[in-house]
Amino acid sequence: MPSPLETLKSRLADVNALRSATAMMDWDQQTYMPRGGAEARAEHLGILSRMAHETFVADETRRALDDAQGSAEGDDAAMIRVTRRDIDLATKLPTKLVEEKSKLAAIAHERWVEARAKSDFAGFAPTLERMFDIVREEAEHLGYTDHIYDALIDQYEEGATAAEVRAMFESIKGPQVALVKKIKEQPQVDDAFLYGNWDEGAQSKFTEHLAKAVGFDFERGRQDTAPHPFCTGWSVGDIRLTTRYKPYLGSAIFGTLHEAGHGMYEQGSPMAWDRTPLAGGVSLGLHESQSRLWENIVGRSRAFWERFLPGLKESFPAIGDVDLDTFYRAINKVEPSYIRVEADELTYNLHVLVRFELECDVLTGKLAVKDLPDAWNAKYEEYLGITPRNDAEGCLQDVHWSMGSIGYFPTYSMGNLLSYQIWTALQRDLGDTDALISSGDFASILTWLQDHVYSKGRKYSPKDLVRQVTGEAISSRSYLDGLERKYVEIYRL
Amino acid sequence: MPSPLETLKSRLADVNALRSATAMMDWDQQTYMPRGGAEARAEHLGILSRMAHETFVADETRRALDDAQGSAEGDDAAMIRVTRRDIDLATKLPTKLVEEKSKLAAIAHERWVEARAKSDFAGFAPTLERMFDIVREEAEHLGYTDHIYDALIDQYEEGATAAEVRAMFESIKGPQVALVKKIKEQPQVDDAFLYGNWDEGAQSKFTEHLAKAVGFDFERGRQDTAPHPFCTGWSVGDIRLTTRYKPYLGSAIFGTLHEAGHGMYEQGSPMAWDRTPLAGGVSLGLHESQSRLWENIVGRSRAFWERFLPGLKESFPAIGDVDLDTFYRAINKVEPSYIRVEADELTYNLHVLVRFELECDVLTGKLAVKDLPDAWNAKYEEYLGITPRNDAEGCLQDVHWSMGSIGYFPTYSMGNLLSYQIWTALQRDLGDTDALISSGDFASILTWLQDHVYSKGRKYSPKDLVRQVTGEAISSRSYLDGLERKYVEIYRL
Repeated sequence: MPSPLETLKSRLADVNALRSATAMMDWDQQTYMPRGGAEARAEHLGILSRMAHETFVADETRRALDDAQGSAEGDDAAMIRVTRRDIDLATKLPTKLVEEKSKLAAIAHERWVEARAKSDFAGFAPTLERMFDIVREEAEHLGYTDHIYDALIDQYEEGATAAEVRAMFESIKGPQVALVKKIKEQPQVDDAFLYGNWDEGAQSKFTEHLAKAVGFDFERGRQDTAPHPFCTGWSVGDIRLTTRYKPYLGSAIFGTLHEAGHGMYEQGSPMAWDRTPLAGGVSLGLHESQSRLWENIVGRSRAFWERFLPGLKESFPAIGDVDLDTFYRAINKVEPSYIRVEADELTYNLHVLVRFELECDVLTGKLAVKDLPDAWNAKYEEYLGITPRNDAEGCLQDVHWSMGSIGYFPTYSMGNLLSYQIWTALQRDLGDTDALISSGDFASILTWLQDHVYSKGRKYSPKDLVRQVTGEAISSRSYLDGLERKYVEIYRL
Repeated sequence: MPSPLETLKSRLADVNALRSATAMMDWDQQTYMPRGGAEARAEHLGILSRMAHETFVADETRRALDDAQGSAEGDDAAMIRVTRRDIDLATKLPTKLVEEKSKLAAIAHERWVEARAKSDFAGFAPTLERMFDIVREEAEHLGYTDHIYDALIDQYEEGATAAEVRAMFESIKGPQVALVKKIKEQPQVDDAFLYGNWDEGAQSKFTEHLAKAVGFDFERGRQDTAPHPFCTGWSVGDIRLTTRYKPYLGSAIFGTLHEAGHGMYEQGSPMAWDRTPLAGGVSLGLHESQSRLWENIVGRSRAFWERFLPGLKESFPAIGDVDLDTFYRAINKVEPSYIRVEADELTYNLHVLVRFELECDVLTGKLAVKDLPDAWNAKYEEYLGITPRNDAEGCLQDVHWSMGSIGYFPTYSMGNLLSYQIWTALQRDLGDTDALISSGDFASILTWLQDHVYSKGRKYSPKDLVRQVTGEAISSRSYLDGLERKYVEIYRL
């Protein structure tokens, strides 16, 4: 007869298989699925999500969890802690609600793609309204003491609260707006040479070259294209990146480096934890810290392009004979713009702030879904000084709401802060990181991150891990210092 | 409370979702999966197959089936008949055996790919031996009265037996060998211009153009590449073809037309039957009749290339200024060769005969797995007059055994016969099919097949369907007549 621990592991393996199936169906939907497959996909995702949920929250799983608790040690004890948190979160959600959300998400994704293509928010609004209803219901089931948002963000970032998020934005808003203002008074850098009709094959090849160079393992992953780049996976040995090809050459390059950051974090879990709850990133904020670290701190550094600019010019001759300094300034151009995923590093958090405030307002009933476009545009005018010309470049730009991922956006900003905070810790150990980057020694950097972050998987809580790695709680100091230092030089302030 | 019929349908929808997941994982494994994903894929496939099997054979499903039997009418009655056959087949197999086979198949696929690359049968033999053991065990569970093979082939072709297959080969072997012999005495046609270093992008584009022209719906399907072309799907609205690019230009072209034939059959099920047991092809023989019909009878006709040769020359200028007659003879060149999937129409069935006889011999213990290469080569010498130079072009060429699909091959030959037999019936209704083909009116042909075959899904047994469509049981007459007429002209016999 199997021990409770064995029973638990076997049940969790079943859940993992079902979730892997839905992850792959989701990946396929965003990369390769023909339009005709949408209806069946929605049904399949609904059914498999329900099965995963039912298997996970079944009495037998919980009983095995309770019975295994006492005797488990080391990794097993950590696995049990993580599973208990997950199962508590999941048990609060009725199976029917989970299935309904999953089905709606599949349909909403198709509607969102269409609506964005036609810049037709009205066509998407009823579906989004239904999604907010479901998410509101979810929050009530999950429970919260202070703010409905707390229930939602905790799913993505254990222990985070709306109040913390608000405080975080308070601490950075002032300095960032001031810095942006100073930059506006300086002559703008020129990045026109980064726009063109770039060959997709060349972009695919070059971005894979970069991802490989920094350490993403293509024996255990691959890259495809999707309208909205993302990283997913169903095994430590099979992690999928996506990127996209746009007239702005940086879209593909920094899109790939961003997703490769997520991907290397996922690939860095111990193989022994594959298909268990301990594998993968511990929270969305930590995850985002790694995508932003590789995208911004490494990928947008002068040292990085000291190494890769010659190759870039070879792959894209139309870029011309641009020198390193001009190139470096171009890829770090600061300019309030419409699209979050293409925002510069400095204004990025203001995009997130807009979404955070709108989500809170819709959730609490202060704002109707149908009024989102106007509210969105007003906030863009207020924080960024620009008004989207249409909803495609306004409130229809992100995939998240169609998926019901509400409460998710602030983790992007937490990631931005953590990327600099972790980098500061890394520099204390490794010293001259510019020298490592320009010489192509990404292995030293990856190994440090591997040792301190990736190999820990979900073993420690996000707050514990941040303390272990950086010696303190999440803080905006390194982030503000880093940006100040970087942009004072670039814009000669 | 749901009615027994509703309960049954809901259970079957769950099974369908699980099988769709395994189908997609299998598709991904053969098209995009990185090597590092193999181990987890094997585990996931094993678990999900077990779940599908358990859900399908569960008491609750069977009870709902029994209870729904009396009241069901029309399509529902047919669905119940089909489900009963499937469930009877499946219940005979122990869950553990199903899971073990599925896991082994995933591992065996990787081993087979490696072994074929290195032409190293010995490296694959132990895995294959284990697979034959499992299949033998399967046959014993399924049961048979006459020959162990009957239990296996019945899974793919309801009601077919080893004796029938043997009789089929008896009826065609003589005339075919005689025809091949006569052809050997004639001057050989030249197809050298079909070999070259063809651009993969151009092949992809041209083959998709052909598939679209004949009627494969790319809104409800797509084409990718795989080492061994196949067609799969998980919805009437989402059917996936694969093809491959080789120095022989015909590999991609006829590979695509072949898989598009399978694909159009799948796309032709009524949308109302999507995700139910009634959707899809009724048997492998019928399925193959459609792939061969579109590949050989349509795709290798003079009329077809009257229409498409100019476009082919534009896409592949290196082919030169070949005239229609030369091209038509080249693509119908008859020459005993090593690779089944690239065999000409005339010698194809001899390849199948080799596999059928070897499968019987291994299953009954007359032949050891380790001796397969020698036996294989001896039979190729006997039936085709050639000896493979290595196992990659010998007994390692096919994917089937690695998947445990033993008893499957004869359905290819049944498909060859049925393709001509069904075409003869179609011609009785449509008259001058050459005129339809050369004018690009594939819609008339597709509509006829749609009405008579595809729209029937699995509603009737294969034997019933063949009688309905052609007015008789499977017969070699149309097939032998068709080949005789075609090759007498091509080789000026």
